[in-house]
Amino acid sequence: MTLIESARDMQGQAQAWRRAGRRIALVPTMGALHDGHLSLVRIARAEADITVVSLFVNPTQFGPAEDFAAYPRDSDGDRRLCEAAGVDALYHPAAAAMYAEDFSTWVNEESLSRDLCGASRPGHFRGVTTVVAKLFNAVGPDVAVFGQKDAQQALVIERMVRDLDYPVRVIVAPTVREADGLAMSSRNRRLSAEARQQAPALYRGLCRAREAFENGERRAAALEAVVAAELRAAGARLDYVTVVSRRTLRRGETVVAPALVAAAAFLGDVRLIDNLFLD
Amino acid sequence: MTLIESARDMQGQAQAWRRAGRRIALVPTMGALHDGHLSLVRIARAEADITVVSLFVNPTQFGPAEDFAAYPRDSDGDRRLCEAAGVDALYHPAAAAMYAEDFSTWVNEESLSRDLCGASRPGHFRGVTTVVAKLFNAVGPDVAVFGQKDAQQALVIERMVRDLDYPVRVIVAPTVREADGLAMSSRNRRLSAEARQQAPALYRGLCRAREAFENGERRAAALEAVVAAELRAAGARLDYVTVVSRRTLRRGETVVAPALVAAAAFLGDVRLIDNLFLD
Repeated sequence: MTLIESARDMQGQAQAWRRAGRRIALVPTMGALHDGHLSLVRIARAEADITVVSLFVNPTQFGPAEDFAAYPRDSDGDRRLCEAAGVDALYHPAAAAMYAEDFSTWVNEESLSRDLCGASRPGHFRGVTTVVAKLFNAVGPDVAVFGQKDAQQALVIERMVRDLDYPVRVIVAPTVREADGLAMSSRNRRLSAEARQQAPALYRGLCRAREAFENGERRAAALEAVVAAELRAAGARLDYVTVVSRRTLRRGETVVAPALVAAAAFLGDVRLIDNLFLD
Repeated sequence: MTLIESARDMQGQAQAWRRAGRRIALVPTMGALHDGHLSLVRIARAEADITVVSLFVNPTQFGPAEDFAAYPRDSDGDRRLCEAAGVDALYHPAAAAMYAEDFSTWVNEESLSRDLCGASRPGHFRGVTTVVAKLFNAVGPDVAVFGQKDAQQALVIERMVRDLDYPVRVIVAPTVREADGLAMSSRNRRLSAEARQQAPALYRGLCRAREAFENGERRAAALEAVVAAELRAAGARLDYVTVVSRRTLRRGETVVAPALVAAAAFLGDVRLIDNLFLD
C-alpha cells in the first residue's frame, strides 16, 4: 500500500494508473476506521482496479462549537486496517496543505443541504462538498463509495456530481450496525459507558417508526413522535427527527414514498445520526 | 474536428485520449470567436496534443439586466474558425443540459471576485467559476488557456484551481488588440459606429496611466483619474477604474508593484473591460 501525502503526488499516481487503463475507486473517510468503512472498501475493490482511501479529518465541516479537536484519530491503526483490507493507496494530506491561509473557494450545494443536519450544523455541508470536490480533483476516481448512515451527505454529493459534471459514479452502501443495532460511526468511540447503553434507542426508534409506516401510518408528525419517544425514554437528547422525501429532502405533513426517516441525537456530549428508508 | 454536445460524450472522448497518453488543452469560450480566441488556440496547440474549444454562452454569469440575449452568437462561423485553426474537438453543450431545473451546486470564490467586475456584476464570478468547474470536469484538461483581457477572471480561476486541487495548469495569454489598441472582445461586434470610434479611449487611458506610473506616479487616485479623464473626453461612461495589487486585487492609496490598472466602461450600451500591468 502506498502512502500519499500531497494532492500533487496523488494526481501523478492517479494519472499513471489511468494511463495504464486502471479504474480507480475512492473511499473518502475521516479515519478512525471501523467495519462500516471496511464494507465501503470491499465495494470499492469489487468496482474498480485500484482502491484509494482518503483519510482527512476535515476542519471546515466542523462548526466552532463542534468536536473537531475531540474527533477520534488513529492513523496508525487506520493504516494497518487499510493495508489488511487490500487498499492500494492511502491519501492522507495535511490540513495546512488542504487549506491555504488565503483559501477562498467553496463548493456550495444550496437545496438538499439546507434542512436536517444542514439546519443543525450551519456550514457543515459547505465543508463536505468543498473537501469532496478537492478529493475528486486529486484522485480522479471513476467510482466513489459513501455510506448510507450519512444519508443527507450522500444525496448532497450525488447532486454535486450531477450539477458539476464530475465523471464519478457515486455508490451509497448500506449502513453497517453493531449487534444491538447501533450504526457504526467513528464517534461511537467517544461514547461513555452510559451513553453507549442509551445509543441503540436511536435505531430502535427509527425501526418503530418504520413499523408504524408499514402498518399504514402516513402522518409525518406521528412517525416522528415515535422516534422522539424512544429517545426520550432512553434519556437521550433529541437534536432533530424528520420524515422527508428521499428525492428532495423536503418534509410534507403526509408521507409519500420513497421517504426517509432521519434523526440526530446527543448521547451525553456525542451527537449521533441514523436513518431508515420508508418505501 | 469532432463536435461534442454532452458532458458524458466529452468525458468518454477525453478518457480515450488520456488512456492513449495524450495531453489535453482546453480553451473555454462563449463563442463569437475573434483573433484573441485564436491566439489562445495557438498556445493550446503548442502546449498539448489535443485542443478542445468549449463554446457556451453561460447564462449564469449574466445578471438579469445584462446582455445575455444580445450577446453575439455565431456558432457556424465559430465552427469554421476552429476547424481552420486545427482544433480537435468543439465542446458545445446545450444550456438545458448544463443547468437542470433543480440545479443547486455552485462554486464560489469569495475574495478575489469581490471587487472590480465582481462589484459591478453581482453573481458574475459565481457563474464563471461554476461553469469553468463544469468544463474542467467534463474535459479533464491538463492545461487551460484564458485571456489576460479578463484579468480578474484569470486570477479567480487560478485561485479556484489552487483551492480545489484541480490538476490543471492555467495559462494566461496576452491581450490581442485591434490596430487602434482596442482589446479584442466578442462584444465589440455590438458597438455602434460612434461607440466604436470612442472605444479606443479605454486602452489609451490605461496606457497614459501606465506612462504616469513609469514616470513615478504612485498615487492610485491620480492614476485612476488619468483613465477617467480619457474616457470622459471620448464621451464614454465609466463603470469603474481602479489600481490594485495583482496578487490580492485589493486597492491601496499607494501603488506597489506588481499592480494592475483595470477599467470598465460603457460605449453606448456595450460594456467593455481592459487592463494593463504596472510593474
